[in-house]
Amino acid sequence: MTAYAALERLFARLRALGDAAGILGWDAQTLMPTGAAAGRAEQLATLRGLSHELLVAPSTADLLAEAESGAASLDAWQAANLREMRRAHAHASAVPGDLVEAESKASSAAEMAWREARAASDFAILKPHLEDVLRFAREVGRAKGQALGLAPYDALLDQYDPGLRRARIDPMFDALRTELPDLIRAARERQARDGAPPPVAGAFPVAAQRAVGEALMRTLGFDFERGRLDTSLHPFCGGATGDVRITTRYAAGDFTRSLMGVLHETGHALYEQGRPAAWLTQPVGDARGMTLHESQSLLMEMQACRTPEFMRHLAPVLAGAFGADGAALDPDTLQRIYTHVAPGFIRVDADECTYPAHILLRYDLERAMVDGDLAVADLPGAFDAGMKDLLGLVVPDDAHGCLQDIHWPGGAFGYFPTYTLGAVAAAQLFEAATAAEPGIRPGLAEGDFRPLLGWLRANVHAKGSSGSTDEIMEAATGRPLGIDSYRAHLRRRYLGEGVAA
Amino acid sequence: MTAYAALERLFARLRALGDAAGILGWDAQTLMPTGAAAGRAEQLATLRGLSHELLVAPSTADLLAEAESGAASLDAWQAANLREMRRAHAHASAVPGDLVEAESKASSAAEMAWREARAASDFAILKPHLEDVLRFAREVGRAKGQALGLAPYDALLDQYDPGLRRARIDPMFDALRTELPDLIRAARERQARDGAPPPVAGAFPVAAQRAVGEALMRTLGFDFERGRLDTSLHPFCGGATGDVRITTRYAAGDFTRSLMGVLHETGHALYEQGRPAAWLTQPVGDARGMTLHESQSLLMEMQACRTPEFMRHLAPVLAGAFGADGAALDPDTLQRIYTHVAPGFIRVDADECTYPAHILLRYDLERAMVDGDLAVADLPGAFDAGMKDLLGLVVPDDAHGCLQDIHWPGGAFGYFPTYTLGAVAAAQLFEAATAAEPGIRPGLAEGDFRPLLGWLRANVHAKGSSGSTDEIMEAATGRPLGIDSYRAHLRRRYLGEGVAA
Repeated sequence: MTAYAALERLFARLRALGDAAGILGWDAQTLMPTGAAAGRAEQLATLRGLSHELLVAPSTADLLAEAESGAASLDAWQAANLREMRRAHAHASAVPGDLVEAESKASSAAEMAWREARAASDFAILKPHLEDVLRFAREVGRAKGQALGLAPYDALLDQYDPGLRRARIDPMFDALRTELPDLIRAARERQARDGAPPPVAGAFPVAAQRAVGEALMRTLGFDFERGRLDTSLHPFCGGATGDVRITTRYAAGDFTRSLMGVLHETGHALYEQGRPAAWLTQPVGDARGMTLHESQSLLMEMQACRTPEFMRHLAPVLAGAFGADGAALDPDTLQRIYTHVAPGFIRVDADECTYPAHILLRYDLERAMVDGDLAVADLPGAFDAGMKDLLGLVVPDDAHGCLQDIHWPGGAFGYFPTYTLGAVAAAQLFEAATAAEPGIRPGLAEGDFRPLLGWLRANVHAKGSSGSTDEIMEAATGRPLGIDSYRAHLRRRYLGEGVAA
Repeated sequence: MTAYAALERLFARLRALGDAAGILGWDAQTLMPTGAAAGRAEQLATLRGLSHELLVAPSTADLLAEAESGAASLDAWQAANLREMRRAHAHASAVPGDLVEAESKASSAAEMAWREARAASDFAILKPHLEDVLRFAREVGRAKGQALGLAPYDALLDQYDPGLRRARIDPMFDALRTELPDLIRAARERQARDGAPPPVAGAFPVAAQRAVGEALMRTLGFDFERGRLDTSLHPFCGGATGDVRITTRYAAGDFTRSLMGVLHETGHALYEQGRPAAWLTQPVGDARGMTLHESQSLLMEMQACRTPEFMRHLAPVLAGAFGADGAALDPDTLQRIYTHVAPGFIRVDADECTYPAHILLRYDLERAMVDGDLAVADLPGAFDAGMKDLLGLVVPDDAHGCLQDIHWPGGAFGYFPTYTLGAVAAAQLFEAATAAEPGIRPGLAEGDFRPLLGWLRANVHAKGSSGSTDEIMEAATGRPLGIDSYRAHLRRRYLGEGVAA
């Protein structure tokens, strides 16, 4: 067996372990009895520990070196696969095992403290834990940065989005920082003239909501032979290769958020279900990174499923499922509900227009923390000042401020920017897709997503990790990731620019 | 760290991997989308392969030898734990890795062929696969027998029930073979005088059946903080340490089998939930073996929950859940339904009285196959002859004969006897329990299982694998496993012997 073939076997094994962890993680958030949490943590830690041991074993380094020396005989996908193997190995071996363990334990403790702190809106409960987590994250950033030749924050970014760098983000986020306040103000003035959309009211039984969600998942192209829809406190897309499981949560008095959440997670799931079939067990068969992953969820949720076209498909579906309460929601009303702009404190509740402000703030703060320019003790004040600055809101307490997200307590520094970069990519991809495939927009009104999904499959999903995010974007849209399409999309949808009256 | 302590760490890791596999196996039978089967098989094979590698690693043998040389410093539980570690290692290391893999693949292929063969009632479809599986099972039996100093069939038995030997089984099964036909005939004549119990008829909505099942699980003592009840095609008790999951299946027109299935699996689950808390991650904390495991399910299902006392508790529960259809079933009718004797072709549908005949037949056949005295080609004929002999039934086709069970295609030779040994142990334990705790029988009528569960916890569950099956039986009942109590139980329940008129 060649060194490369031996590596393929090793990584298939790692994939199987990762998939096992994926199902166990899904179960923990959906069905697991409460008393089983400690045992499940042990199972997941064991799987992760074994995976790490296999990946950083001396034999793996030897195989990588040998395979790289014989790389001339590999085809393009194999060569890309080998690059991704090297990348995974570099990340894993850059950090000493005891630091991995210490960081993992600190994050677990901080997540538990965070739940308590948020419930009590008491930052002091979280503070010492977050200080630990930040210290370890900075150490990890330094260690990986040294190994990869990157600045610490770039090394952290690279964990979630291979190749993503601060220098790539800053120009886009700087432009947004300049333009966003005016856009939000103008959008709100325009909507104020029309008045607020009517409140959604009625009885929307959970079983009917679920049926609508499943029906729309099928409409979008979700394959239920290789996935499920379930319920969890925090919606997510998880599971395993060939077994992609999304979740939502239901409120019997208002289906709107739950339903859009299903469409969002379905976008993630379609990416997973569309990964290149021949490479499913290999790193090159992975989704490229969190920017493109979020682009797929937001392309479905924001670009495709908040269009007037889709509302024409959605309205009769809702009328069929919810009777008179559903029929009250005509396409125009649905569109107004689903594009209503209203600044608020909570990121996950934010509308499309104000959402980037939440990310800009977190990006600034986490860079400053990683760079050592912002102490954890000063986080609440800095957070609140940023909210005032960006959205004009006075944060009433830390639960509505810097305690709202689990990311930092969980150790995920470098993740937040991918939300808005995903929105940016979604706009660029949807623009290119609709230009290339004239059947896409009319299809949305007919509940025919095949033209859209076909384009995404060919131009994004089936690419796996064979190229960088920018290479995939450029091949799909003619240019690397940039904010022009996103800016145009927001101005069109919220200011009416470039739309025929 | 001492060698013993290092072994505890290793076995805790193996337990975590086994628990992960337990949840993944549960998921595969309850929720997994059909297209995910191949990926799941890969995940499970990877977990098993890694566990096997860790267990048979040279360092493990070194640690065992070192720990055994220092065993004088261990307390009784640690010493028993070390014995169990050695046992696990001996079983695992006796079989070369390629044989493990070959056997596993042959079993997977045979299980798939079996589904097809059973559906078509065509033994020819299974035959070549079963020949492969049997060949590998015989090889495994020889290899383990050599390593453990046992005959091949004893080595196979030992996999499922440590310490169980053919010489221990034969006297009990020989007696049953002699007595059972007369017992069945006499029981049927006695029941014929009373006429058949009325057919169960009515509407028994699945949701209500599920609620009854959960309520009775709580009554028996099941802890829903550490377990679940779900639905699967084939009922089972699975899951993980501290996360014990049982399943049943429902028929809307007849709740009786499903409900008794829940009580059976609850018996298994209570054993798992009652394992010694301080040793949950260690081999000595395991349930002792399949005989005692089945004894716990059958003690609940057959001994406790088919008594006249329990029927007095059950009848009003059913009336509350199913209205008039439930109220039609008074305690006496329920008791007649649940103790009705009727020979049939299918083992899993058999009543308590005829069930052992199915096991005696399988025991004879599998010993003969393992010993090389019965060729797979001759299995159908031998099976049918045995059914005629033991139950007087003419098997109409192989689906109702030798194709009905998955055990042999799955490679489980040496498992069947534990079903009847479990019934034997259940009778002996229940007799001892009710003699020791006068509150047990009245408790059954009140839905108060605490006296019974308390006795089982102390005398069986909390013993884990600290002693052999016979040691646990002797400590609990005053004598090793034997059929006296079982015989007396059957004669009492089905012939009315020793029961006040």
